Amino acid sequence: MQQDIINNIAEICYQQGIERVIISPGSRNAPLTLAFVRHPKMQCYSISDERSAAFIGMGMAQANAKSVALICTSGSAALNYAPAIAEAYFQEIPLVVITADRPPEWIDQWDGQTIRQDNIYGKHVKKSFNVAVDLSHTDAKWQAYRIINEAVLESSQGIKGPVHVNIPFREPFYPEKNENWNYDQNVKIIKSIAGEKRLNENQISQLQAELKEKEKIAFVLGQDDYTEDFLEVLNQTSQQLNIPIFADIISNGHSLKNSINLPDSICMSMLKDSKAEETPDLIISFGKSIISKNLKLFLRKNMKAQWHVRNHHAFVSDPFQSLTKQSEAEPTLFLQHLNKKSSTSFLELWLDKNANTQNKTEEFLNTQSFSEFSALHDLIQNLPENSHLHLANSLSVRYANFIGIKNKDIQVWANRGTSGIDGSTSTAVGHALAHPDQNHLLITGDVAFFYDRNAFWHKYPYPNLKIILLNNQGGSIFRMIKGPKEQVELEEFFETEQRLEAKSLCQEFGIAHFSAHNSESFNTIKDKFMQYPHSAIIEVKTDSTTNQKIFEDFKKQLIS
Amino acid sequence: MQQDIINNIAEICYQQGIERVIISPGSRNAPLTLAFVRHPKMQCYSISDERSAAFIGMGMAQANAKSVALICTSGSAALNYAPAIAEAYFQEIPLVVITADRPPEWIDQWDGQTIRQDNIYGKHVKKSFNVAVDLSHTDAKWQAYRIINEAVLESSQGIKGPVHVNIPFREPFYPEKNENWNYDQNVKIIKSIAGEKRLNENQISQLQAELKEKEKIAFVLGQDDYTEDFLEVLNQTSQQLNIPIFADIISNGHSLKNSINLPDSICMSMLKDSKAEETPDLIISFGKSIISKNLKLFLRKNMKAQWHVRNHHAFVSDPFQSLTKQSEAEPTLFLQHLNKKSSTSFLELWLDKNANTQNKTEEFLNTQSFSEFSALHDLIQNLPENSHLHLANSLSVRYANFIGIKNKDIQVWANRGTSGIDGSTSTAVGHALAHPDQNHLLITGDVAFFYDRNAFWHKYPYPNLKIILLNNQGGSIFRMIKGPKEQVELEEFFETEQRLEAKSLCQEFGIAHFSAHNSESFNTIKDKFMQYPHSAIIEVKTDSTTNQKIFEDFKKQLIS
Repeated sequence: MQQDIINNIAEICYQQGIERVIISPGSRNAPLTLAFVRHPKMQCYSISDERSAAFIGMGMAQANAKSVALICTSGSAALNYAPAIAEAYFQEIPLVVITADRPPEWIDQWDGQTIRQDNIYGKHVKKSFNVAVDLSHTDAKWQAYRIINEAVLESSQGIKGPVHVNIPFREPFYPEKNENWNYDQNVKIIKSIAGEKRLNENQISQLQAELKEKEKIAFVLGQDDYTEDFLEVLNQTSQQLNIPIFADIISNGHSLKNSINLPDSICMSMLKDSKAEETPDLIISFGKSIISKNLKLFLRKNMKAQWHVRNHHAFVSDPFQSLTKQSEAEPTLFLQHLNKKSSTSFLELWLDKNANTQNKTEEFLNTQSFSEFSALHDLIQNLPENSHLHLANSLSVRYANFIGIKNKDIQVWANRGTSGIDGSTSTAVGHALAHPDQNHLLITGDVAFFYDRNAFWHKYPYPNLKIILLNNQGGSIFRMIKGPKEQVELEEFFETEQRLEAKSLCQEFGIAHFSAHNSESFNTIKDKFMQYPHSAIIEVKTDSTTNQKIFEDFKKQLIS
Repeated sequence: MQQDIINNIAEICYQQGIERVIISPGSRNAPLTLAFVRHPKMQCYSISDERSAAFIGMGMAQANAKSVALICTSGSAALNYAPAIAEAYFQEIPLVVITADRPPEWIDQWDGQTIRQDNIYGKHVKKSFNVAVDLSHTDAKWQAYRIINEAVLESSQGIKGPVHVNIPFREPFYPEKNENWNYDQNVKIIKSIAGEKRLNENQISQLQAELKEKEKIAFVLGQDDYTEDFLEVLNQTSQQLNIPIFADIISNGHSLKNSINLPDSICMSMLKDSKAEETPDLIISFGKSIISKNLKLFLRKNMKAQWHVRNHHAFVSDPFQSLTKQSEAEPTLFLQHLNKKSSTSFLELWLDKNANTQNKTEEFLNTQSFSEFSALHDLIQNLPENSHLHLANSLSVRYANFIGIKNKDIQVWANRGTSGIDGSTSTAVGHALAHPDQNHLLITGDVAFFYDRNAFWHKYPYPNLKIILLNNQGGSIFRMIKGPKEQVELEEFFETEQRLEAKSLCQEFGIAHFSAHNSESFNTIKDKFMQYPHSAIIEVKTDSTTNQKIFEDFKKQLIS
């Protein structure tokens, strides 16, 4: 009878929109495993390492903008989910995390796989629920079904994010032979509809009155899951009103006509000394994090007014230390209230800066000897249309942001919620599994790559994923920063020099392995690599001292 | 000036007894890294994957019964520590977990590597502290030093365990060139002394009066870090008073003269039907978890009285559902109050059962065809004296418990705090690094082994570690349990069939690889493997159906 209720939990998840489930093996979670695997409409994946499993699930949820369920057994399994859950929380990716638990009477009784799972994800989930252990009373069943409804709704509505449901199980976990197996399609479903947030006429008039004062306006686009509709309206508005759009690589604003896609490079030379005509009077921002450190510093130093526009605000976030107004309204509608033209010369000044920087960057990279930076430049320039580009933290995403993408239909993904290196590969694998018909390219460094190697430890093929591994045998970002490179501990405790190469790993997981250590070898194989019909890694092996010099020269010529 | 304070934090840790530190690379934690690495007495290790780093540190702390410090950067790094921290919490292993944090003003501002680190380990640390971000005021400095003193004391006194210290840092993180570098040896140190807990005369008389009623007494020894002194007094007491000691493999009671080291096998046949003369009137228990499921079930079914004796009780734990008295007193002293002889025939009955079971087990295993079980039996029987035996969850530790160790000076370790598979290899690596002069043998299954493969991803050698990898290509424990083996989902969602072999991995990490798939190959190489001068793995490849049959036959003959 208990299994019937668990089956209905799977049914509720399905009717609320969950179609994919990542299951990590265990015994305590067997009733959940069976309920979801046997559900005719659920697509289930079995992944052993819960840390990778959670990032793979998160990648799928991100790819489809739809809640994915994670299911694990009791004990430390649940804790291995924590890094992906924090990433999903700050990136607002919908996940329903279902942990099997021991029944409450066995907590703290020195029995196996028993920890304190109540509220185990602390402040990194939207909500945390406990299902009753005894579901025989009608009210307990009503509560269980209500909780599952709420969990899926909560994960996917308003500010999306991870929601935790902890379900304790007493034995037996497995059905008898020939036990009836049912899903009640009329199980209790609670639907939820939410209206659009619109400003009222007073608010709009007030806004427009304030806008009158502003001569130079800029949009800033943070990372977010923007709709096509929003980007289209933003594109139109920015052209009608002469507003440049500061859109670094993680914003996916690179196809917008007025996008300033190299703000990090441009602002580098403006940090010490910027002119009044370069500085906006007002920035109107959307989304969440940006990666361009120099843009952040420029805005923090110079801005007096910022309006931040989102449908919901989880908290007051003021990354440019210039926030003066939060607008909680549907961003697409909000754009339609803007009626003040910004200065044409201001727009042109920024578009010119962007074009110049782009030329400078290309000239520079075309004349350099082979390095990580030049290899990435080549690959990113030649990315096929409609590809997905996945950027690992920490140096990979920064390189790519300096290279930039312009006027191409490429979707960029990066774990900038927590900016960890722990799950970049697994996230990309999740995307590749969710969209097997699309091309995915992951750019990663050796530390992030070997850290998350269990991304490959499962039986699901990902022939559509290509990986560029920048193997400089250590965390060479530390060599690029002034502080650590001057310490004698650089190699052991900052770079963490490491000698691994990807060849053995590729052999182990059946991934094709290409290797390039100079322009000749790179040029010979890059096309073959990109067109390889199965999953493949190209290991770009370069010397970190050369990389460091080229990156420093690059920055010098930007500010010269 | 801030660096001086951080240096003194390292100095306090040293003066409070910390000698080993595991550091995972990052920039935010650079002041901590430099303070600990440059401290003349600290032994620092750089490990990139924080999940492995924490288990390696935990292994070291366990090996030396001394606090180890973990240091990581801000963001999800801290969350990757969580599985090891929960294990350390329930196994009561002293750890001081120092996480660098962003300053509080940057939390929730969409800046990189910023999460909510306050109290991030929830209910799985003894205490959690936040150091002030601004240490310029004398009181803030006083507080910081006091917190570090308390953190180390708290980790290592009373009930040991992990303690969290979160330290926010504003830039700059790196010292100027030629900056003075000092450790103040007269920094504030708070010493702590604690008296021994002894029962008073009334309590002792009461105890002895109650004991008079008991004819058949047994000791139960759970997993714990017992002193040699305690084990010696237990040995004497049990002989003087004719008391058998139920001591399964994780208790390390196998050298005690009256130890019943195969209680799991013995109790299997007694579950349905046990006689009054076999059942103790009272069990007196020490330590924490036991692994023998049949012993647990036997005690739960039959016992009416259990006294549990520990120096401290974190919570009321009643794993045999028979607890009637907790005694909070120094166990060695407590033993001296026992003055009631237990029945000689009761002791002899159990010693006979144990000897018979041991004979049966050996006869059985000597006549079977090659399997995981027989290979382990051979290796465990021939373990050199003074070795350390590390047992991974889940099947490895159960096999070893059925085989048993008798009258040998072998120390057994297993992560039975949370019973997770996530860090068994890293924990063993930590032990091997802490005691390079001693032999360590790890028995592990393929799921646990590949899960925790980043245990090897660092530059510190462990030639004294040998690994027996039972590779049956999946979590074959599920094949041994009645429930899952009857489900059609067995292979994909319970066993999680996986095709990896360890050869590529050994190549990658420079570990010698031996392989055995039948008695001949096993007998040919086992001595060479055990005596190999560098780290080595023997991969025992067997068929899970055969293993299942042999294990089932074994259980059948036990109850026949």
